[in-house]
Amino acid sequence: MARVINFNAGPAALPLGALERAQKELLDIEGSGMSVMEHSHRGKVYEAVHNEAIALVKELMNVSDDYDILLLQGGASQQFAVVPMNLLAQGKSSDYVMTGAWSQKAYKEAKVLGTARVAGTTEKDKKFSRIPKQSELELDPNAAYVHITSNNTIFGTQFQEFPDTGTVPLIADMSSDIAWRPIDVSKFGLIYAGAQKNLGPSGLVVVIVRKDLVEAGRKDIPVIFQYRTHVENNSLYNTPPTFSVYMLRNVLSEVKANGGLSAMEKLNREKAGLLYEAIDARSDVFACPVDKDSRSFMNVVFTLKTPELETEFLAEAKKLKMEGLKGHRSVGGMRASIYNAVPREGVATLADLIKKFKA
Amino acid sequence: MARVINFNAGPAALPLGALERAQKELLDIEGSGMSVMEHSHRGKVYEAVHNEAIALVKELMNVSDDYDILLLQGGASQQFAVVPMNLLAQGKSSDYVMTGAWSQKAYKEAKVLGTARVAGTTEKDKKFSRIPKQSELELDPNAAYVHITSNNTIFGTQFQEFPDTGTVPLIADMSSDIAWRPIDVSKFGLIYAGAQKNLGPSGLVVVIVRKDLVEAGRKDIPVIFQYRTHVENNSLYNTPPTFSVYMLRNVLSEVKANGGLSAMEKLNREKAGLLYEAIDARSDVFACPVDKDSRSFMNVVFTLKTPELETEFLAEAKKLKMEGLKGHRSVGGMRASIYNAVPREGVATLADLIKKFKA
Repeated sequence: MARVINFNAGPAALPLGALERAQKELLDIEGSGMSVMEHSHRGKVYEAVHNEAIALVKELMNVSDDYDILLLQGGASQQFAVVPMNLLAQGKSSDYVMTGAWSQKAYKEAKVLGTARVAGTTEKDKKFSRIPKQSELELDPNAAYVHITSNNTIFGTQFQEFPDTGTVPLIADMSSDIAWRPIDVSKFGLIYAGAQKNLGPSGLVVVIVRKDLVEAGRKDIPVIFQYRTHVENNSLYNTPPTFSVYMLRNVLSEVKANGGLSAMEKLNREKAGLLYEAIDARSDVFACPVDKDSRSFMNVVFTLKTPELETEFLAEAKKLKMEGLKGHRSVGGMRASIYNAVPREGVATLADLIKKFKA
Repeated sequence: MARVINFNAGPAALPLGALERAQKELLDIEGSGMSVMEHSHRGKVYEAVHNEAIALVKELMNVSDDYDILLLQGGASQQFAVVPMNLLAQGKSSDYVMTGAWSQKAYKEAKVLGTARVAGTTEKDKKFSRIPKQSELELDPNAAYVHITSNNTIFGTQFQEFPDTGTVPLIADMSSDIAWRPIDVSKFGLIYAGAQKNLGPSGLVVVIVRKDLVEAGRKDIPVIFQYRTHVENNSLYNTPPTFSVYMLRNVLSEVKANGGLSAMEKLNREKAGLLYEAIDARSDVFACPVDKDSRSFMNVVFTLKTPELETEFLAEAKKLKMEGLKGHRSVGGMRASIYNAVPREGVATLADLIKKFKA
């Protein structure tokens, strides 16, 4: 079967070039006579892959030397706990901006480990269909940190501008929109992202953390959960998920070859524009529940007038080889996840179907 | 280049059939038009892989319904902390049998989290070159659990029989010898194993845990670290490392097709026998520092009379396409890791070199 148009929310579409390279090298990487999966994580072949992956994150995201880049396991869900374990000192409080299911999970873990406050939410008035404005946030100037989820896969919202938190470190779960465009990393104390949307396969989480936060981190927690452990060992304290790191390298090599994050942003804005324009133009059948200034460039959520129409729409999409358009089980409706690796032509095919469906 | 003879200690050799299957399916698994890495972890294609992997662990290791099988991230090093987080109740103490660097790391994490005792060690008299006997263990009958490392990759020792801990749950880090032969799982409270030796690539840890221990586990720790969270969600609470699970499925399918764990044991005993016999017969040049009744069937460590001879031996081995024979950086010498996937012929080539070297 030919490859389909993959709108999965994550794990998600990967660049074809990154997969083809992996396929070609699967039994023998660089004439070494073994798969990258069979190499020691302390050997030269893997070490080069590991360091190239880190260097590509640094280069593409323009990360300064004030930050360390870590390649860890456990996904963003584990970082929900590991962030407060490291950074929520005793007697301090942490601020959480609530924009959906993921920030709720992060907040819940922080409350197990210390004090966490809700510093803003759009749950009650708008069911998370928009991002709170700066003026709506009640930030604690003494907080250990402020936590946000930069993009919300389920509700289809995204921070267009990041909150100003003054001297309090801003921490962002960027799992679903890291590397979709250039950002100013220096505005953040810590960024973390599960790889399985814009960076690679699942099983890997990238953490970009300011060095002073690493140094100030708690030491009364297990060694394996201390950021400093992984900083001191270049993410080789224990065996890293070597194949996932290898795929991160392959994916970011493709991004770089295709013009880096500025080119990604241009492409992603075009892709999202095609869909939102088509949805808005077909208000007889389609609707996007998200406020215009909060709409995600990564996850385009929309509904049709009736469940029957949604079923019919999914069937039409399937005929055109589109997969993964069903919305998250908790909210229903449709969702097109259009991460970096989803080609423009695939998105155009979907926009075309929206334009023509029952027209 | 042809595939080499891979004696890496982990990540390590994988069955060629498991890799070839992955290569073939890399762009399109089961006619779905996408890579297994691009499938949703909640979709049918991945779900079938996930459940088959768990079923193969259960079948091959003959795990009863009294146990849950979990597929997690973070490796054995994370379990060093997660085990006491779950199972070391306040006011209780835990017992650790010290047989090398890995048990020392496990013990260190437990001490951060609660009370841990050394219940036996062979460090002082023998530098970990043998496994302590049952009579040498001082077990606390009120301990929360007894922890052992069943095989020690660095020192080349292995428990041939497991300690009798009475009613105290026995917990084993089996990272480097899980599935090398049939064992009686019912003797254990919990078994954990990083996948990267006998099971698959790195980035995945398999946990086999008795249901009553899951139920009794602490609830005052982050949700992500509670075994019950993963039991209740069939290891799909958060996104699993889908490609690593897929490779676990491929590897265990090969093991099953080749006769299961009884056939593995026969093969592994033959392989280890070839090497230990060759080393013992060449005491003019070679020596194995491990007591005979503690010798590992997975990691055969040995030394040569001088560093110059070791360098020469490694060069000869390289000519014969052997890789990964250098001992762990902390102890030096040689080490041949001969996990399930290392073919008999490769081991025979090494045994032959030992027989002929400087003869």
